[in-house]
Amino acid sequence: MNINGKHYRTIWVDPGNEKVIRIIDQRHLPHHFVLEDLRSLSDAITAIKDMHVRGAGLIGATAGYGMYLAALEAPSGDEFDNYLRDAGSSLKAARPTAVNCSWAVDLQLQAMKKGSATHEKISIAKSTADEIADMDAEYCRRIGEHGVKLIEEISRKKADKTVNILTHCNAGWLAFVDHGSATAPIYAAMDKGIKVHVWVDETRPRNQGAALTAWELGQHGVPHTIITDNAGGHLMQKGLVDLVLVGSDRTTHTGDVANKIGTYLKALAAKDNGIPFYVALPSSTIDWEIEDGIKNIPIEERGGEEVKYIEGLCEGFIKKVLLAPDNSPAANYAFDVTPSRLVSGLITERGICRPDKKSILGLFPEKKRRDG
Amino acid sequence: MNINGKHYRTIWVDPGNEKVIRIIDQRHLPHHFVLEDLRSLSDAITAIKDMHVRGAGLIGATAGYGMYLAALEAPSGDEFDNYLRDAGSSLKAARPTAVNCSWAVDLQLQAMKKGSATHEKISIAKSTADEIADMDAEYCRRIGEHGVKLIEEISRKKADKTVNILTHCNAGWLAFVDHGSATAPIYAAMDKGIKVHVWVDETRPRNQGAALTAWELGQHGVPHTIITDNAGGHLMQKGLVDLVLVGSDRTTHTGDVANKIGTYLKALAAKDNGIPFYVALPSSTIDWEIEDGIKNIPIEERGGEEVKYIEGLCEGFIKKVLLAPDNSPAANYAFDVTPSRLVSGLITERGICRPDKKSILGLFPEKKRRDG
Repeated sequence: MNINGKHYRTIWVDPGNEKVIRIIDQRHLPHHFVLEDLRSLSDAITAIKDMHVRGAGLIGATAGYGMYLAALEAPSGDEFDNYLRDAGSSLKAARPTAVNCSWAVDLQLQAMKKGSATHEKISIAKSTADEIADMDAEYCRRIGEHGVKLIEEISRKKADKTVNILTHCNAGWLAFVDHGSATAPIYAAMDKGIKVHVWVDETRPRNQGAALTAWELGQHGVPHTIITDNAGGHLMQKGLVDLVLVGSDRTTHTGDVANKIGTYLKALAAKDNGIPFYVALPSSTIDWEIEDGIKNIPIEERGGEEVKYIEGLCEGFIKKVLLAPDNSPAANYAFDVTPSRLVSGLITERGICRPDKKSILGLFPEKKRRDG
Repeated sequence: MNINGKHYRTIWVDPGNEKVIRIIDQRHLPHHFVLEDLRSLSDAITAIKDMHVRGAGLIGATAGYGMYLAALEAPSGDEFDNYLRDAGSSLKAARPTAVNCSWAVDLQLQAMKKGSATHEKISIAKSTADEIADMDAEYCRRIGEHGVKLIEEISRKKADKTVNILTHCNAGWLAFVDHGSATAPIYAAMDKGIKVHVWVDETRPRNQGAALTAWELGQHGVPHTIITDNAGGHLMQKGLVDLVLVGSDRTTHTGDVANKIGTYLKALAAKDNGIPFYVALPSSTIDWEIEDGIKNIPIEERGGEEVKYIEGLCEGFIKKVLLAPDNSPAANYAFDVTPSRLVSGLITERGICRPDKKSILGLFPEKKRRDG
């Protein structure tokens, strides 16, 4: 998508030096636009762990390029494979909830088996990382194509009046390589001339909604309004929301959706007010193993200081301010799980389906196991 | 309650000059403890409107003293009553959702009718304001007496293990004259030696939970943990919440509860997880007119800058930082309404009742109308 009129992806190989991966360091948005060079596995792990990059798709793409950087720095010979296996474990541990991380690492380990000499494996790692990134962008584009039909239908029912969409966190193009998941149908609707307006949950504690979603929607000219995470229920009661559209960090093949903390509360409110609640996700986000998302998806706990302190722009500088008594403890769960019964449907790159095993496997029949 | 070991109320008449009302200017908490003198009706309106004071009970008490300050400055003779009527309208308009404001103003206007000379009316206004404040403190104390029974029962069922209580916003003693509403049972439980722990919703956008509730609980030694408003649903799914206890800014006599924005989302999550959801409120908070809270309680909309900017402590100073793109709009609804079907019960100064007209009128039979 465009930034100041120039097209960007969120991650790419430096055209001048293909041993360098470039990313947008999203910690500085919306106030400053900063690019960062990743030159080592360690850089990639830090970028994922400290959230220079975030979002399911982009974490996957960064893990893919992280494995390529690991291959570049690995000792050749017998130790190469061990080094890459360890690199994969470290990348997987950087953000435990994001299934795309594991998915990209495993894809790389599998692909590199096809090479024998070190230089072959490096070359495979590079092309696999590129493929992961390209596939992410293409899948998001297709999610937009499928999801826009929901918005078109609501627009028709409302006689072309503005369709109000509520979203939580950033499942925008900044969370992927391009297009975004939850935002892809919105951008597609804009392109078709459908009137849309987006309620942007600020998404505490890291404010990805206020900082990132509002910024990228603004860059694309999408009408939007920032709200606190507390406000969505009231807006739904008052008929001011037509559709809830969120992304996912991991969705079980049974339809339970792990997404940014607070998503579950919006799903409850949507259900209580008869408002459709859709989750947009590329299939790389689907967990084909776990059956019960609430019981079995690990939920990352982050430091309490992310709740007690917040960063923002003050007199031209990014400042961190304390919001609470210094000696009060804080807890910081990063995700929650919305049970499938609260989800109207999943928007994938292959189409829209109901959030249950049968419908999901209907779209992805190659995932059917012999035992199932 | 105590601050640094010294007993305070949130509002009182200056013992050295009874034409001056003193308040804690809560905008500076938790970082600095600042007292403010109110010397005019205009000071009182500003204190309410700009939230130097906030919370149902304290707004009522401040409106009571605001009417006393208005009486002190009113022209004597024929114009006195007009001045006080206008003063009442201005006070009522300062925070439209808080029913206690109207209640205190009307009580004052009624009481002053009993005086004839201006000095008599001033004297009545002073004693009525004192009575409103004393009554608020006493009612909260009784709410604690009744509400602690719920906590005792849970404690018994858990074999004296810690009772985890989630609260939203500040319905603590800082929101009243003393004791608080939602916190009164918690303080009473502490006094009885029951093990409690409070999950404190930070309560965006004004962060009354993180700034005020955490501060007052800390002062009293109540174990607590600050969480984002997004986290409550996840905690409930994981069995980490035994009881939700909130206050109210206005509750209809049919049991619909207007409280700080986001309360409705917590009520939905409590219902979904079979967790009791209780609302603690003095009867001054009950609206005896409105039947349908969701349709008919006016919801205050405040400026979007309260969402986009946040204040906190930075290097010893209170700084305001920008959280969002400067040119993105924000909306700021201050309250929402939780329908009675999601409320387990109301804790009032006369006891606990179900959130329906019959049960509420059972506790307050004097409110039964001839037509009802």
